[in-house]
Amino acid sequence: MTDIFSLKVEELAAKIKDAQISSVEICERYIERINKFEKDIKAWAHFDKKVLLEKALEADDHRKSGKPLGPLHGIPVAVKDIIGTVDMPTECGTVIRKGKSYSQNAEIVDLLLNAGAIVMGKTATSELAYLGPPKTTNPHDYSRTPGGSSSGSAASVASFMAPLSIGSQTGGSIIRPASYCGIVGYKPSFGLISRNGVLKTSNTLDHIGMFGRTVEDVALLAKILIKKDKHDPATIHYSTENILEETKKGPLFEPKFIFYKTDFWKMIDKKSKESFEYFIKSFKNIEVFDTPSYFKDIHKYHQIIHETDLANNFSVYYKKYKSKLSKFMQSAIAKGNKYSAKEYAEAIDFKKQSYDSYQEVFEDYHGVITPSSPGVAPKGLTNTGTAEFNKVWSYLGTPCISLPLLEGENKLPLGVQLVGDRYDDHRFLGVAKWLEKECQE
Amino acid sequence: MTDIFSLKVEELAAKIKDAQISSVEICERYIERINKFEKDIKAWAHFDKKVLLEKALEADDHRKSGKPLGPLHGIPVAVKDIIGTVDMPTECGTVIRKGKSYSQNAEIVDLLLNAGAIVMGKTATSELAYLGPPKTTNPHDYSRTPGGSSSGSAASVASFMAPLSIGSQTGGSIIRPASYCGIVGYKPSFGLISRNGVLKTSNTLDHIGMFGRTVEDVALLAKILIKKDKHDPATIHYSTENILEETKKGPLFEPKFIFYKTDFWKMIDKKSKESFEYFIKSFKNIEVFDTPSYFKDIHKYHQIIHETDLANNFSVYYKKYKSKLSKFMQSAIAKGNKYSAKEYAEAIDFKKQSYDSYQEVFEDYHGVITPSSPGVAPKGLTNTGTAEFNKVWSYLGTPCISLPLLEGENKLPLGVQLVGDRYDDHRFLGVAKWLEKECQE
Repeated sequence: MTDIFSLKVEELAAKIKDAQISSVEICERYIERINKFEKDIKAWAHFDKKVLLEKALEADDHRKSGKPLGPLHGIPVAVKDIIGTVDMPTECGTVIRKGKSYSQNAEIVDLLLNAGAIVMGKTATSELAYLGPPKTTNPHDYSRTPGGSSSGSAASVASFMAPLSIGSQTGGSIIRPASYCGIVGYKPSFGLISRNGVLKTSNTLDHIGMFGRTVEDVALLAKILIKKDKHDPATIHYSTENILEETKKGPLFEPKFIFYKTDFWKMIDKKSKESFEYFIKSFKNIEVFDTPSYFKDIHKYHQIIHETDLANNFSVYYKKYKSKLSKFMQSAIAKGNKYSAKEYAEAIDFKKQSYDSYQEVFEDYHGVITPSSPGVAPKGLTNTGTAEFNKVWSYLGTPCISLPLLEGENKLPLGVQLVGDRYDDHRFLGVAKWLEKECQE
Repeated sequence: MTDIFSLKVEELAAKIKDAQISSVEICERYIERINKFEKDIKAWAHFDKKVLLEKALEADDHRKSGKPLGPLHGIPVAVKDIIGTVDMPTECGTVIRKGKSYSQNAEIVDLLLNAGAIVMGKTATSELAYLGPPKTTNPHDYSRTPGGSSSGSAASVASFMAPLSIGSQTGGSIIRPASYCGIVGYKPSFGLISRNGVLKTSNTLDHIGMFGRTVEDVALLAKILIKKDKHDPATIHYSTENILEETKKGPLFEPKFIFYKTDFWKMIDKKSKESFEYFIKSFKNIEVFDTPSYFKDIHKYHQIIHETDLANNFSVYYKKYKSKLSKFMQSAIAKGNKYSAKEYAEAIDFKKQSYDSYQEVFEDYHGVITPSSPGVAPKGLTNTGTAEFNKVWSYLGTPCISLPLLEGENKLPLGVQLVGDRYDDHRFLGVAKWLEKECQE
């Protein structure tokens, strides 16, 4: 029997195409894992194995008919439960939306379906993609958080309950759970993937991202999902024709990196710090730099935008169902209601200035490296950890990826975050692949 | 002697290229006009005929050397005094900046120079491109305003003191003065022209635009100025390769138009209303529609964004030199200081929703027509008129153009505003050309 868990998704899709394995067989293997681990990990907000097998059977029938196949034909993909799906509820991690559905598929769901993929289920999310934690646990230690808000998306891939998943990031909701769960998490540049039909928490900060086991896996999924959509005016035309090839090829020359420890270095556990120090020393092409002063301003401005936008987008919930919102959300909205328009406008405006400063890095370097998270997954399930190492890049809209290259305390996984230049995702993924490969050798 | 004032700018540039006329001869003709009319019209914030003639001589020497020539080689262009120029002051219409210069040329100034054009001088602007009027008068009646804030840019072209000029629009600062002065004024889609090195009043609303005597003239200038600039992140890649050809060619079929009288129809003088009614009746392809309900919201949101951004961008002036600011600016900043972040975020967010509604028009029609201004230029120089017919399009970022097709009260010029779909400027200019031509025949 093929060990489907050790294959890249592209290889798995090729095997389906060549009839070496069926979509039903693959889905059955994932269902086995779900039967075994879901009771402890609680990664799914909605999962129906019968429906999944029906969809897989349909995919296999389609293949047998000889009709053309999409690049993800028959591959199951898990989707965060803030992403609209017509045939499953979209509860957005809040009791207020218990059992409620969206009337249309999100644009990215249709893109998945067009590529032949199967939406295998909806993964648990923090409340309204903010900080209120779902019940999901960390596959490496059930007493710890998997991170959030894309908790179930990260945990499902980490526990081999799904080969790929889609999540979102407004603060650190892709990179942090990827780090805590020991998988690859990729947030493309702002404006590459449509948010149409996805819960809006902040138009300025919301990004779609994805989880997989390798850089190539997330690049393959990105190739499907990156597309200009007139219903999300933030999206731009961006050709992904060669994105997978460029990822595989990697950079022509050895890349040079800047490592920012940042002001939050002190939050990191001792063992994780040692791992990072060892990592830095083992590359002669990594230089440690002082934290740029604009990082501090960005943290302030990110918070103003995020809280104001939550207050705006969830004002009806706040008015009608305040007691059903978590203390995290209540506090954010209360703060968001108090900022002035001037503060908000200033927060928006600072993006250009800080991005100009950030961009100078790429005159001499090929990537910025930082921790993905302040150490390993924290104990307990009452919060999902913090996004100190992620907010800057959510604000600037640069591509970032967490690579599961290190271990911290208790041999728990620890992500290395690579950050690139905006709209340079092709080359960026190639550099990420280079880093991944170097650490395997 | 060539009647340079009746030529299109493209024809004039061709004559320079073919040595049928020199840049010095052309500039001398404009200097004659300036000598004659500037004392009454006061269109210039900075003009030095000696320097202009030196630049023209240089242009002629360049041509004689046989070196390649840009498309505007030797053509003088007037530039609004909020656009940075290293060799002339940039006072932005406020005493606070009296005699002050920018340290760099604006990106669009460099684009002009690269095209071989001559920056002939700086044109008078309302205070900080808002409502405080400059001394400029209307060339058709010195007792009336030329409109603003691009007062001098419009008046200089209208009085044949310049063949082309650049202005800007945040509310109605291109379309309104074009209407009052009886020339063509064009504001391209948001994001086509860089604002780098231009006074920032509102990142969300500020547009660069231009004035000329014909649609082809402004299309030629647009072709030079439209360019993605990494220093203005709002700019997009937009090919202008065929923009002039598409403008000349016009639409393949007779276009269909919607006319919105809007809620401000009642502000228009009787004679202007009659002109519009006659205009509407004379085209069987114009249908009068009720004003969409979202126009009212946009007016509210435009004001919130505009005043907040003024409060933010001019906070130092407000703190240090409040008494030197006009009552218009003081009042706007005072209001801008009071909005909440929620109101501002809501104002920004509404753009997508309202644009979606607006865009539906283009499923069946090729353009929207409205008055360019509430009638002809008002009497007096204490204000520059109002932007009721312009704010919607500044907010939505759609292309718009004012065509000098009608007359109102006292036989004063009255503009017809054509509005298109965002990023459809090629086709839009072709439709504008069609309308211009129909009215000439």
